[in-house]
Amino acid sequence: MANVSTSAISARHGAQRPRLRPTVDYATLVGVFGAFAVIGLAMVLGGSPESFVDLPAILIVIFGTALVTVVSFSLAEVARAGSIVWKTAVYHCEEPTIAAQQMLYLADVARRRGRLALQDTVREFRHNRFLHDAINMVIDGIPTEQLEQILTSETASMRHRHLRTAGVLRRAGEVAPAMGLIGTLVGLVQMLGNLDDPTTIGPSMAVALLTTFYGAVLANMVFTPLATKLERNSENETSVHRVYTLGAASISRQENPRRLEMLLNTGLPPGDRVSYFK
Amino acid sequence: MANVSTSAISARHGAQRPRLRPTVDYATLVGVFGAFAVIGLAMVLGGSPESFVDLPAILIVIFGTALVTVVSFSLAEVARAGSIVWKTAVYHCEEPTIAAQQMLYLADVARRRGRLALQDTVREFRHNRFLHDAINMVIDGIPTEQLEQILTSETASMRHRHLRTAGVLRRAGEVAPAMGLIGTLVGLVQMLGNLDDPTTIGPSMAVALLTTFYGAVLANMVFTPLATKLERNSENETSVHRVYTLGAASISRQENPRRLEMLLNTGLPPGDRVSYFK
Amino acid sequence: MANVSTSAISARHGAQRPRLRPTVDYATLVGVFGAFAVIGLAMVLGGSPESFVDLPAILIVIFGTALVTVVSFSLAEVARAGSIVWKTAVYHCEEPTIAAQQMLYLADVARRRGRLALQDTVREFRHNRFLHDAINMVIDGIPTEQLEQILTSETASMRHRHLRTAGVLRRAGEVAPAMGLIGTLVGLVQMLGNLDDPTTIGPSMAVALLTTFYGAVLANMVFTPLATKLERNSENETSVHRVYTLGAASISRQENPRRLEMLLNTGLPPGDRVSYFK
Amino acid sequence: MANVSTSAISARHGAQRPRLRPTVDYATLVGVFGAFAVIGLAMVLGGSPESFVDLPAILIVIFGTALVTVVSFSLAEVARAGSIVWKTAVYHCEEPTIAAQQMLYLADVARRRGRLALQDTVREFRHNRFLHDAINMVIDGIPTEQLEQILTSETASMRHRHLRTAGVLRRAGEVAPAMGLIGTLVGLVQMLGNLDDPTTIGPSMAVALLTTFYGAVLANMVFTPLATKLERNSENETSVHRVYTLGAASISRQENPRRLEMLLNTGLPPGDRVSYFK
Amino acid sequence: MANVSTSAISARHGAQRPRLRPTVDYATLVGVFGAFAVIGLAMVLGGSPESFVDLPAILIVIFGTALVTVVSFSLAEVARAGSIVWKTAVYHCEEPTIAAQQMLYLADVARRRGRLALQDTVREFRHNRFLHDAINMVIDGIPTEQLEQILTSETASMRHRHLRTAGVLRRAGEVAPAMGLIGTLVGLVQMLGNLDDPTTIGPSMAVALLTTFYGAVLANMVFTPLATKLERNSENETSVHRVYTLGAASISRQENPRRLEMLLNTGLPPGDRVSYFK
Repeated sequence: MANVSTSAISARHGAQRPRLRPTVDYATLVGVFGAFAVIGLAMVLGGSPESFVDLPAILIVIFGTALVTVVSFSLAEVARAGSIVWKTAVYHCEEPTIAAQQMLYLADVARRRGRLALQDTVREFRHNRFLHDAINMVIDGIPTEQLEQILTSETASMRHRHLRTAGVLRRAGEVAPAMGLIGTLVGLVQMLGNLDDPTTIGPSMAVALLTTFYGAVLANMVFTPLATKLERNSENETSVHRVYTLGAASISRQENPRRLEMLLNTGLPPGDRVSYFK
Repeated sequence: MANVSTSAISARHGAQRPRLRPTVDYATLVGVFGAFAVIGLAMVLGGSPESFVDLPAILIVIFGTALVTVVSFSLAEVARAGSIVWKTAVYHCEEPTIAAQQMLYLADVARRRGRLALQDTVREFRHNRFLHDAINMVIDGIPTEQLEQILTSETASMRHRHLRTAGVLRRAGEVAPAMGLIGTLVGLVQMLGNLDDPTTIGPSMAVALLTTFYGAVLANMVFTPLATKLERNSENETSVHRVYTLGAASISRQENPRRLEMLLNTGLPPGDRVSYFK
Repeated sequence: MANVSTSAISARHGAQRPRLRPTVDYATLVGVFGAFAVIGLAMVLGGSPESFVDLPAILIVIFGTALVTVVSFSLAEVARAGSIVWKTAVYHCEEPTIAAQQMLYLADVARRRGRLALQDTVREFRHNRFLHDAINMVIDGIPTEQLEQILTSETASMRHRHLRTAGVLRRAGEVAPAMGLIGTLVGLVQMLGNLDDPTTIGPSMAVALLTTFYGAVLANMVFTPLATKLERNSENETSVHRVYTLGAASISRQENPRRLEMLLNTGLPPGDRVSYFK
Repeated sequence: MANVSTSAISARHGAQRPRLRPTVDYATLVGVFGAFAVIGLAMVLGGSPESFVDLPAILIVIFGTALVTVVSFSLAEVARAGSIVWKTAVYHCEEPTIAAQQMLYLADVARRRGRLALQDTVREFRHNRFLHDAINMVIDGIPTEQLEQILTSETASMRHRHLRTAGVLRRAGEVAPAMGLIGTLVGLVQMLGNLDDPTTIGPSMAVALLTTFYGAVLANMVFTPLATKLERNSENETSVHRVYTLGAASISRQENPRRLEMLLNTGLPPGDRVSYFK
Repeated sequence: MANVSTSAISARHGAQRPRLRPTVDYATLVGVFGAFAVIGLAMVLGGSPESFVDLPAILIVIFGTALVTVVSFSLAEVARAGSIVWKTAVYHCEEPTIAAQQMLYLADVARRRGRLALQDTVREFRHNRFLHDAINMVIDGIPTEQLEQILTSETASMRHRHLRTAGVLRRAGEVAPAMGLIGTLVGLVQMLGNLDDPTTIGPSMAVALLTTFYGAVLANMVFTPLATKLERNSENETSVHRVYTLGAASISRQENPRRLEMLLNTGLPPGDRVSYFK
């Protein structure tokens, strides 16, 4: 059985092996930048886009929101939030079906050519740290229970980091409008104390409203949507990790890959089920 | 027993066989369009309905809401939402009682003339994919446990799709007023920066308020009511699917239809119970 | 034992038999109409009560609220809500203690003169459909388990109808202020577009505010309080039905009425316990 | 053992027997009246405190709130709320530790001089109805299970009354600002309809705002804080009743008081534990 | 084994013993003071920072909030809140990993040199009352079950105090904006009653807005962030106490420290696991 060549395995499914590469989540980028473009267009059409830029207002809302958010968490957590948002909400992988095909391919290779044959394919997954580690542990012959425990605990830890970051974003989404209101109150009190020259009332009021505007934009067009996307993608990534964990444990136990296919399919929605073995 | 003709069975209940056709949910259409008509009438009575149309305001609210909603989900999900709303909130079927009568009719046919006799009637249900698939599986003699598992998993998957779509609508119902507020703030800042000509203040302010108006209308008269209706109809459709699943399993097990009647009645509210067999 | 006359039984408790007649819930009527009277008085004292009547505003709020509420439910449910509100929130019975005395009286009659003797008293309860049906089932000798199941399922079904109706009222209480806001925005946009004649600003603005006023009154003085009252009275009515169900089952099982007294008392609050048998 | 005198028992703890008298909860009184004093001072400093008194506004908010609150409950419940607020939120007892010492003292007396000796001390507790009843039941020799059941059910019933009343207060705290808004809308519509004399605009607007002011004061400075305090004190009173119930049951079972001490301490926070027996 | 010197044990890990000293939580201080600095800067840049200081407004918001918050709690609790905020939200320790290393060090010492050898090290922990008490109980030979029960109950009691204080802060965060609104309404009514001199309208309105401003600042920049931080740090401190409790129980049971290491690691996130024994 071990003398079946890899190309024979590949041949079953044409030349392609299933790949699961993290891809840019265009919905996130298109949504956020598109919404900013729409608001920007409205400003330009209205005639004076420069009247929407006010440095003190920007400082109050952006720094104020950052500082108040930091109070509720720690500096480390807020700093880490940026990279997690990038990796999960923007540049992510979310296909349990492709992950299932991948594991079935690996299980098939291990079944036909022995566990050590996975060493040839493990390099392909070097960009997918979780799968890479899982396969390496299988190759190293770590006991199945320990392998399952390590992978499950890694997944739980990733999930916890994601939810913590989503919490930072949600909190920032609450703080931003509050800082906007505080900035507007500062502006209104200043304006009302100097009503001598009526021609300045309008512009002063416009500036006062800018912090409310910035706060509303930050909260509704950045923080809250990113928090929701992060939670959703994190759920998908957890499903992908579960597929990897089930698959690695199955290969480690040297089960029949057809049994793995059945097992993986019970966890997938009907339309996304895989049928690797005809 | 197998030589009892279908007409004899039909004769029991007069010439009619129970039908469960998806029908237009008039409450949804009448409600949404009626509410728009009421608001439209108020605009016309007020004299200048054209003052409620402002292209930039429409762009900000509609495109802004769509783009920000897309961030929280994926492009595919938002695109799919439209067709699900149409199929479930507008054009739907919601009668567990009729579904129960249908299954009892089919069970009666299968009991008297054998399972294969269902082939004659299965064509009638070609518009009802779920029932059609269920009966075909019964005719094909798929084992009962597998049949139950497939149908239950299909129902769970439909339910999940519906709730996901209701989530898209609820999210859009939160985003729309926020985009309305942002648009109004843009308009107010522009207006306040140019107070030179007092005669333009009123119309500028009116235009600024339009985004808030559009946001309130979209959220309160479209997104939120449709989300609620979708959740409610989805619950009804789940009940109908449960009746089909119980019925198909009972026919597959060749149980006495009277036992199926008892079983179905325990799940129906007292006023809606069926008594197919006198 | 069967020759003990009914009058002897009555004599124990004086001439009165316990009655549980639905009565008008004055708190509901006094509260709603009193609150309207207070607001009306404030209008009259302010000088021009006619300025609070504006037909388009009334149409927007009342029809708009009705139509949008209908979207979330079905026409049938909204239509049924009216009669349920009347029967439960206004004209209702809420005394588990009296119900307990009633059941003990009936159990005593059945114990002394036999189950069929209940036929003489069942007529008294013809206005109380649930109790009437329960006693008739006891007289007809329906098996106790079936009797309990039917009565419990009837109660659950009534509870479900009440909560559904309370949901309609709660939803209407959310929709009404939203329609009020939409109406006010329509009025404001119309007013701001026509600032030529300054003397019309005030009255136009007053009219614009009327929809907000109607929405606030409907939601806070009608829909929300009635929903809360409905939920509260429904809970009481469920307790009364539970007492009837326990009692009917006990009579059907021909238990000693003293045992029923103990059983009923465990479900009643300490101050409301009955002691029918000295 | 029975010949050990009471004074010998008292001597153990010096001359003092533990007392648990209801005391005025100064936090409640100081908080509510202090907050009113602060607002009153602000009014006086502002120059014209009489401008804050407007009879129609007071009528709308106070009567309106009372009437709408009554709709959600019954007249009896709202009437009873007053006395419960007084007894629980203002004039209350909240010391589980003192209650524990009290029960240990009584258990010690009963242990040394017999259960009937409690008759000498029961008079001391005549102001504490629950404890008084509990001790009397012990003296009367009511079986322990029945005693526990009666006392537990009394406590549950008290808890239910308190939570019901807290619900009345919370509801009033929601209704008051709503009535304030309705009153302000009435005032605004009246003012806007009569803009002929510009000098009356300010005062009319001031009067219109008064209902919002009264509503905010009632809700935020009276109803909501009292509801929170009521819930908190009710929780404490439940703990005290639990201590009494455990103690009475222990005396009734003639257990060793040291065992009661251990039992009571497991339910008390570490810092509040009692050590009656050295 | 007992003759292995402490320095030999220390030598394993270089010269350092793990320390867990409470440290200032800079995120809290930087966040709160930074946010105030940003707002202060905006005031100074706006020209007249003195216009933001109004004694009556400060009195209304600060005293009003304090008094109304006191109603919901007791004087003692509100007074205690200050010191708990300082100890937990500002000056705290939050490292379960260091705590785990500490316990492993102590377990190693106890294993090699006997339980009494802990007396030499217990002095080092005199600033860490919980750990100090735990080790002393181990040295005193208190039975393990009792030790666990005492430490668990201490932790629960600390947790309860923290959550109670977080509740005081959350409540204050709700009350402050309400008192701000009430103060602004007082100011508006006073201003509207005296519109004779138009030049005073602006400044009066500015002063009226100050209470809303103070309320928003207090709630959003002080109370709510501190409440969130308190809850988060309290959770961390609970984890640290759990580590101490597990460790003390393990030492008391004279278990192998390697078993303790495994036990502690199951409760730590993967990245924070300790490997004391190579």
